[in-house]
Amino acid sequence: MTNKLYDTSLSLLTDLYQVTMAYGYWKSGTAEKESVFNLYFRKHPFGGGFTIACGLTNVIGYIENFKLSKKDIRYLRSLTGNDGQPLFEEAFLDYLANLKLTCDIEAIPEGTVVFPNEPLVRVRGPILQCQLLETPLLNLINFESLIATKAARLRLVVEKDTLLEFGLRRAQGVDGGMTASRAAYIGGCDATSNVLAGKLYGIPVRGTHAHSWVMSFDNELEAFQTYADVLPNNVTLLVDTYDSLEGVRNAIKTGYQLKERGYKLAAIRLDSGDLAYLSIEARKLLDEAGFTDTSIVASNDLDETIINSLKQQGAKITIWGVGTKLVTAFDQPALGGVYKLAALKHDSAVSATLGEWDYKMKLSEQAIKISTPGIQQVRRFRNEQGFLADMIYNENSFASEKQQATMIDPLDFTKRRKFDADQPYEDLLVPVFRSGKLVYESQDIHAIRERVQTQLAGLHPGVKRFVNPHLYPVGLEKNLHEMKTELILKLREG
Amino acid sequence: MTNKLYDTSLSLLTDLYQVTMAYGYWKSGTAEKESVFNLYFRKHPFGGGFTIACGLTNVIGYIENFKLSKKDIRYLRSLTGNDGQPLFEEAFLDYLANLKLTCDIEAIPEGTVVFPNEPLVRVRGPILQCQLLETPLLNLINFESLIATKAARLRLVVEKDTLLEFGLRRAQGVDGGMTASRAAYIGGCDATSNVLAGKLYGIPVRGTHAHSWVMSFDNELEAFQTYADVLPNNVTLLVDTYDSLEGVRNAIKTGYQLKERGYKLAAIRLDSGDLAYLSIEARKLLDEAGFTDTSIVASNDLDETIINSLKQQGAKITIWGVGTKLVTAFDQPALGGVYKLAALKHDSAVSATLGEWDYKMKLSEQAIKISTPGIQQVRRFRNEQGFLADMIYNENSFASEKQQATMIDPLDFTKRRKFDADQPYEDLLVPVFRSGKLVYESQDIHAIRERVQTQLAGLHPGVKRFVNPHLYPVGLEKNLHEMKTELILKLREG
Repeated sequence: MTNKLYDTSLSLLTDLYQVTMAYGYWKSGTAEKESVFNLYFRKHPFGGGFTIACGLTNVIGYIENFKLSKKDIRYLRSLTGNDGQPLFEEAFLDYLANLKLTCDIEAIPEGTVVFPNEPLVRVRGPILQCQLLETPLLNLINFESLIATKAARLRLVVEKDTLLEFGLRRAQGVDGGMTASRAAYIGGCDATSNVLAGKLYGIPVRGTHAHSWVMSFDNELEAFQTYADVLPNNVTLLVDTYDSLEGVRNAIKTGYQLKERGYKLAAIRLDSGDLAYLSIEARKLLDEAGFTDTSIVASNDLDETIINSLKQQGAKITIWGVGTKLVTAFDQPALGGVYKLAALKHDSAVSATLGEWDYKMKLSEQAIKISTPGIQQVRRFRNEQGFLADMIYNENSFASEKQQATMIDPLDFTKRRKFDADQPYEDLLVPVFRSGKLVYESQDIHAIRERVQTQLAGLHPGVKRFVNPHLYPVGLEKNLHEMKTELILKLREG
Repeated sequence: MTNKLYDTSLSLLTDLYQVTMAYGYWKSGTAEKESVFNLYFRKHPFGGGFTIACGLTNVIGYIENFKLSKKDIRYLRSLTGNDGQPLFEEAFLDYLANLKLTCDIEAIPEGTVVFPNEPLVRVRGPILQCQLLETPLLNLINFESLIATKAARLRLVVEKDTLLEFGLRRAQGVDGGMTASRAAYIGGCDATSNVLAGKLYGIPVRGTHAHSWVMSFDNELEAFQTYADVLPNNVTLLVDTYDSLEGVRNAIKTGYQLKERGYKLAAIRLDSGDLAYLSIEARKLLDEAGFTDTSIVASNDLDETIINSLKQQGAKITIWGVGTKLVTAFDQPALGGVYKLAALKHDSAVSATLGEWDYKMKLSEQAIKISTPGIQQVRRFRNEQGFLADMIYNENSFASEKQQATMIDPLDFTKRRKFDADQPYEDLLVPVFRSGKLVYESQDIHAIRERVQTQLAGLHPGVKRFVNPHLYPVGLEKNLHEMKTELILKLREG
């Protein structure tokens, strides 16, 4: 489903330097040169051991709608350099006005667990086009993957409890809220408070009443009873406007009346105070009154650490409402995804002697910032218990069909793993666009959400641990490792 | 200017509980009851001493476009309760379909410095309408105020240097990027890399080339020279793809050629490594070669702390590119704005004995979470040196014309300040909507940006300090203080 928020022309949602570079390529005659870029991140968010890939559906929407409008072109025409003269010449603007994306794009499907240095998206095509896509692709993939990962962590903590996302009011803008609601559901939330996200994405919505409802009446009991009269099939009573346990008693009185009418008091909600103590006391009051089926919802700046602590304290909460800390990924509000050039096709004259591709990488004093060259694919080996290891390989130097493989640990080159040709595996990157045409059918949001849980089940529990998680093995296929090492040495020599 | 991103119907961009409460009010016959809600925050972000109000332009756009579409209504009709029956009855959906906002809205203009507990927006009107607006208003004001404040802090640190916002790729979604670019410019940035924000908001855009440009050539010098050939009036060369100081030398060679052609090497950019050391060394090389006018741009996960440190180390940087840390407000990615019911109008029968308004507040065990009742206005007293104090008063218990005023410190009720009737002041909240009609003319984005600087100039330097900032005095007008105290005692007694 296309995201309706993106119906407006967003084709200029990119950094200016992508356009000035595009002009540079066009002007120097290399605009159509075939290139390969990889989008990947270098470190899991939240100090965790896994990340959930998310955002591809919105990337598809973006690319399918890519078309510079007349207004876009007029705006670009108005830009000037430091001498007051136009930045771009007319013929280039004509070129952009007629530009249609013709790239081949592969991506790892949404809902897949992924690891540092694995290309989540690989773009192959004219370098001018690949460059223009850098910023929007990063924006869309970074944020949704971050939030889906946060939600998956929360899901691990709440286990079989219900997890609700309540974050819209504190989200980073309209789309910060909308996109977070989508990714949070995919990562493991059961529902959202965000009505527009419910409408556009088909996510279940939940909500009952706020403190202001209670405050607008002369007393709490009257507020509860009026609410229950009006919406008897959706009664979760917020009990902490004045005094939480007094509120529970008023909720119980309201519950009796609901019962008489054949309805039920679905839940009470605690939104402040000592949630462990209050939930235990509230549970007692509810049980004594015969409301053993009435759930206790808790909210108030919750995150995975606080929920974990509440569970250890024996809190009687089975529905968790998480807002700010989830939709802004409060403890790490950005995933540092990058998009790096990995290969450029030689002209036919050159390739006769040097081979078809010129592999590219960025050096850095920090080893973690050195990129990996090649037309990369990720092979995930598994056995009956789950996933064993991910091997990044260059499609040009490793056959895509079954063969014996050697994977090298990037942190210790002497550590190698061999996988036999009959070891079960899956290649994670799948074709999404071919020559600019969509060839991929997105799963619906519910299927993507289920995929997250299936994928997590494939990981060893140690990888999912929050404190010092076990490092899931990811390495380079031997030929790629050797090519990269040679290239580094060549570049370092100057 | 209306934000084009919001052209899509966003009327359902709210929490479900706003709609269920709306149904409750409608069904119990109180939908039209006149109420007053205040939007305010409780604590400055980033441990600072001030906040910049921002987001009103987008709030105006939201309210002017508010109208539930047929699809919105169809979606609400599809929602069911825990018995599988519809949540809402048809007559209510008809009511919503025909709903036009008729509220009076006051707000503090964008670009104003504001303090905890001051209403940034005050909404007065039928309680059903006020309630529906809670979530979108919070979403729009919280995020933009957060980012404008972050940018203002950065502006304080960079002083007269150039400040560029580069954050789109790491922003929280499309609108997270768009809105952040707007608020960052208002807060004090000089330009953005975000082309769409440039186009839609009229913000200056800046950008030249990335590492991939350099990597796509056989060597760095060729890459620089080609760039300079193509865009001679926009040459900032990124020098750290392979070796930063070698890069500076290649930039200088390119600079000579530019000079010959009558252009200039505007700047070089450092994006990794020891920015203090490298900028000092780069400055020497540039100066020795006669490029004293060539600026040095730095980027790489900068924030106000790192920039401050670099300046203390004597870094020769005069253009600062800030991305992730600015657009996500990395160290505190949410402003905790709230929206609280403060007054409800009595029925005419009741008001004859009890007065026209019933003042409302939420109690809490935590004093900071107790809201303030009343139809609030903020009076900012000043003298020639700047702002003296902000006094929150109830329009019903304090004349809006000049009169002597007593302001009470909320943390120590015995501390009082008196202001004579002739003390200069400004009332900060201004009318924005009257009976749903726009009566406010938004300033253009550049004027709002200038306002931020004028406002900051009105603050004592201690308030703008980052470490243990001086507390700018904000108190309650005496009558409001007394009314609030009485109300707390009454509520606490039960």
